[in-house]
Amino acid sequence: MRARNKKWAAGELENNPRIIREPVSENGDIKKYFANNNPLHLEVGCGKGRFITETSLRNPQINYIALEREAVILAAAARKAQELAPDSQLYFLLADVDNLLDLFMPGDISRLYINFCDPWPRKKKWAKRRLTHDNYLAKYQELAIPEIHFKTDNQILFEASLESFSRMKWTLQNVSLNLHASNMPDNVMTEYEEKFSPHGPIYRLEALPPQSHF
Amino acid sequence: MRARNKKWAAGELENNPRIIREPVSENGDIKKYFANNNPLHLEVGCGKGRFITETSLRNPQINYIALEREAVILAAAARKAQELAPDSQLYFLLADVDNLLDLFMPGDISRLYINFCDPWPRKKKWAKRRLTHDNYLAKYQELAIPEIHFKTDNQILFEASLESFSRMKWTLQNVSLNLHASNMPDNVMTEYEEKFSPHGPIYRLEALPPQSHF
Repeated sequence: MRARNKKWAAGELENNPRIIREPVSENGDIKKYFANNNPLHLEVGCGKGRFITETSLRNPQINYIALEREAVILAAAARKAQELAPDSQLYFLLADVDNLLDLFMPGDISRLYINFCDPWPRKKKWAKRRLTHDNYLAKYQELAIPEIHFKTDNQILFEASLESFSRMKWTLQNVSLNLHASNMPDNVMTEYEEKFSPHGPIYRLEALPPQSHF
Repeated sequence: MRARNKKWAAGELENNPRIIREPVSENGDIKKYFANNNPLHLEVGCGKGRFITETSLRNPQINYIALEREAVILAAAARKAQELAPDSQLYFLLADVDNLLDLFMPGDISRLYINFCDPWPRKKKWAKRRLTHDNYLAKYQELAIPEIHFKTDNQILFEASLESFSRMKWTLQNVSLNLHASNMPDNVMTEYEEKFSPHGPIYRLEALPPQSHF
């Protein structure tokens, strides 16, 4: 992080009303940020925020929170959202997905978006760090998240994810092995997706947790 | 089927010792064809038989049966197997997979191969004819088949198969979304696979039935 960025980001983090600064408690008070009782959709690792901002614009009846652990990236995403989607129900939270169970109560989240997360391809022991690894799926289940929407361009990550969802008894639906060749007019692209989709297929799936009837 | 072929195939069907001609009863007597008690692997829709013949050559400790419902194709496969793999424990059965429950007893089959089956892509109501449709998976479960190995080059079929295996609570393993780019030295190609793999990825998966501990 360069000093120039640091300074700019610090100001944004301080003043942007879309950034949740205080620690979120365990008492379900994440809802207080929204002036309504609508369902909450969460994106983990939102990057520069294009996906979640565009998605929030298309769905005014949904509340959104975007998690990002890099402060400068989060600040940029929040600034852009403030410009492009002033009326969106959208907040940004500087946090690591590893702390998800401290940030949310079971039932808080109605949908989880995982878009182009780090594939951790090089070392076998790093597989545990993938956001679709069994251990993470167990956390999502603990939070009673009724559906996950997952996209990636990484073949190894998608293969491993199919196996872990299956091993953990999640049910797959709307699987696409070449999203951009499929008929999916509602797809909202991330920055990464726009850049890398010409180089190979984008994989996508939705997954529902075991024994759910959502 | 042309008359010329008909005549040749009739002779082959009559005389090739690898072709099981008589109806297979429900009393588990499929085992009598083999001079041993080794595990039985079944291929449904073996086509010209290259895959199952080559696989049988590599695995002399396994018994093989190949199902094919087109008589001329079956005859050609059996003739080739007789030439190339005279010592293989390999039989060919002129039969339709729809009759699987009449042909085998639960526990007879230790592995099922489904290679490049008809994807039935055009009409939605034809999805039921796919050999990985829920209804077929239920049959395979009834026969207590402990594992399925499935390959296809058809994206729509593979997507639908991932969903049906998942819906029916099978567990996926060794999923490959580009088999020929993966490190899989043991892959035995079918005739179809050799012809079509240059045109796009070959998809592959293994699936284990629900509540199994194989």
